[in-house]
Amino acid sequence: MTAPEPGFDIPARPGDPVSAVATPALVIDLDAFEANLARMADHAARLGVRLRAHAKTHKSADIAQAQVQSGATGICCQKVSEALALIRGGVRDVLIANEVVAPRAIALLMRAASRARVAVCADHPANVAALSAAVMAARAEGAEALTLEVLVEVDTGAGRCGVAPGAEAVTLAQAIHDAPGLRLGGIQAYHGNAQHIYDPAERARVLDASIRAAAATRDALLAAGLPCPRVTGAGTGSFAIEAASGVYTEIQAGSYVFMDADYARVADPEGGVTGGFEQALFVLATVMSTPVPGRAVCDAGLKALAVDSGLPLVAAPAGVTYRGASDEHGTLDDPDGVLALGDQVRLIPGHCDPTCNLHDWYVCIRRGKVEALWPVTARGKLF
Amino acid sequence: MTAPEPGFDIPARPGDPVSAVATPALVIDLDAFEANLARMADHAARLGVRLRAHAKTHKSADIAQAQVQSGATGICCQKVSEALALIRGGVRDVLIANEVVAPRAIALLMRAASRARVAVCADHPANVAALSAAVMAARAEGAEALTLEVLVEVDTGAGRCGVAPGAEAVTLAQAIHDAPGLRLGGIQAYHGNAQHIYDPAERARVLDASIRAAAATRDALLAAGLPCPRVTGAGTGSFAIEAASGVYTEIQAGSYVFMDADYARVADPEGGVTGGFEQALFVLATVMSTPVPGRAVCDAGLKALAVDSGLPLVAAPAGVTYRGASDEHGTLDDPDGVLALGDQVRLIPGHCDPTCNLHDWYVCIRRGKVEALWPVTARGKLF
Repeated sequence: MTAPEPGFDIPARPGDPVSAVATPALVIDLDAFEANLARMADHAARLGVRLRAHAKTHKSADIAQAQVQSGATGICCQKVSEALALIRGGVRDVLIANEVVAPRAIALLMRAASRARVAVCADHPANVAALSAAVMAARAEGAEALTLEVLVEVDTGAGRCGVAPGAEAVTLAQAIHDAPGLRLGGIQAYHGNAQHIYDPAERARVLDASIRAAAATRDALLAAGLPCPRVTGAGTGSFAIEAASGVYTEIQAGSYVFMDADYARVADPEGGVTGGFEQALFVLATVMSTPVPGRAVCDAGLKALAVDSGLPLVAAPAGVTYRGASDEHGTLDDPDGVLALGDQVRLIPGHCDPTCNLHDWYVCIRRGKVEALWPVTARGKLF
Repeated sequence: MTAPEPGFDIPARPGDPVSAVATPALVIDLDAFEANLARMADHAARLGVRLRAHAKTHKSADIAQAQVQSGATGICCQKVSEALALIRGGVRDVLIANEVVAPRAIALLMRAASRARVAVCADHPANVAALSAAVMAARAEGAEALTLEVLVEVDTGAGRCGVAPGAEAVTLAQAIHDAPGLRLGGIQAYHGNAQHIYDPAERARVLDASIRAAAATRDALLAAGLPCPRVTGAGTGSFAIEAASGVYTEIQAGSYVFMDADYARVADPEGGVTGGFEQALFVLATVMSTPVPGRAVCDAGLKALAVDSGLPLVAAPAGVTYRGASDEHGTLDDPDGVLALGDQVRLIPGHCDPTCNLHDWYVCIRRGKVEALWPVTARGKLF
């Protein structure tokens, strides 16, 4: 194997000036990143909830460890292969905040649960039966101590996965409670859509209904004599309201470490709990063409930036707008002609999670220099 | 290092039934893929142009080799790190159909040019000077025989990169011709926007203007006593018209090997040259939730499918529609209730190129079985 080549296998080396980073590159401003970690740790402590940081955003074992070191109780993620990659990277406590259904996925889930504290969600009795059978099979093969914690995913209004609040949730919780090898872990109540409602009043209204459905479901479990040790959910755009409700024991915010153009639209303009997180993630690009006055083209397009939540914003230089993305190009409006061939442009992704999943490395910078390179540990771990 | 784990490091093993493939997975229908290779080879031969297959679509050394074995003169790609990855994979002739500007990128370009036949495009005299200086420096360091072929990128109407047709192109061509270490390779005239104009008459009108600009620029170079050995460009949605013009010596089609939902909208409904390519690329997904009648959720979302050109179409089962994508979920409308938990769904990506770039492996299938696994060799080679 040949040595890693900067700009080929790796985008930079620690100590390089930012001007030497191979672009397009995913860049973390470490000062902003560390400020976001500390701010969320303060919020969780003050609100009296545990932070289960969502690693689906960053897919990085280094960042997961930093979140745990700054007080997070553990992490959550969405896929079993993602959980395995992070466990390989040293993570000890993972909630897969999602259903794991395919037989091969369930087999990998048993492997993950034998290596770390792992919980998973379910919303179908057939899946509960399959999870139970897999645990019992694993016990028969020697993993006598294996027990899988399973939470009931409840649809509190988002309209994606999950059983209905109340009676349907109690029925599934009872099935989990009665299933050999499984332990009922409580309920998962995450309202994804609410994260991206820009109007604070409308967001609060939607979340209030979601929280009441979660509370009623928790109470129904308890009334049925079932345990409900965890009510988990919430995200960067909503955690302040869910945590203040006293219903949630755990919040699953993830994007707060990086932020993006869409979460900036959600953030409380007066700061407050959902505000004040700093943009810590950027895509660094280089101007590769200045074909006519007023137009420049940079080297970051659809393969370097996710555009599902809109085009990137230009953090620097001022006066430049990202007008259009093709696979490997970004067309920039430069009405004042501030850009020259070879200049670097710093872009704020429209949506951080799928943007991070496009890159193999985080280039961590401070004061104009590359301080560290962190692999995107679970990049492409889709299964 | 532990052994590769199906569903973790790799999505399947050759011989597995399709039902056992870890999802979401990028799947190639080998019969359709091979039919597309043969069809394009026939078109190129009949139209009397060379095929320089665009590897930006697939980023795969295996597929590049298959294209060359079926008659392609070589490949093109968009990034120097992509070219290096494919050269490492055995490719011998690469046109980087794009500008290479950053100093670190130019250093890698010298490495690529010392390992294979490599040409590149330019649209700025400062870039031409930098390329020339890099070749002369490489020669001084021992690569005495190194010469870099450089083509003038001409903007024939797409409005992205490229110099103006005619005089401006001649001036840059002269600069390349006069620059030590460089050889003028001709002109790059690619009209990206035209690929996606659905109305055939409008597409023909736009391409006619583009072809006339390319021809006039070629003639202007020749009138100035400059060589113009290559006129290269064209894509899956346009190559028939450009090739028939007699102006283009090379066509750069790439998506034809796979096709996608957007190119299906561009394809000539009567078949013909831009029609008849078969959908060979799919994302295989699994139903992970059936929360309410009429709605199912599959495990392929924004991290498994690019949505910049629209949501995926459902190839199978019939009667199902992909309604919405979130990071790890795809919400399906299933009005007839054909889907059960654990069922597989076969999706046609909206846009093949950025979808392939999300995955590490192609799962190649034939008659219901996995026949081969091909790595996405240059996945994430963004630089």
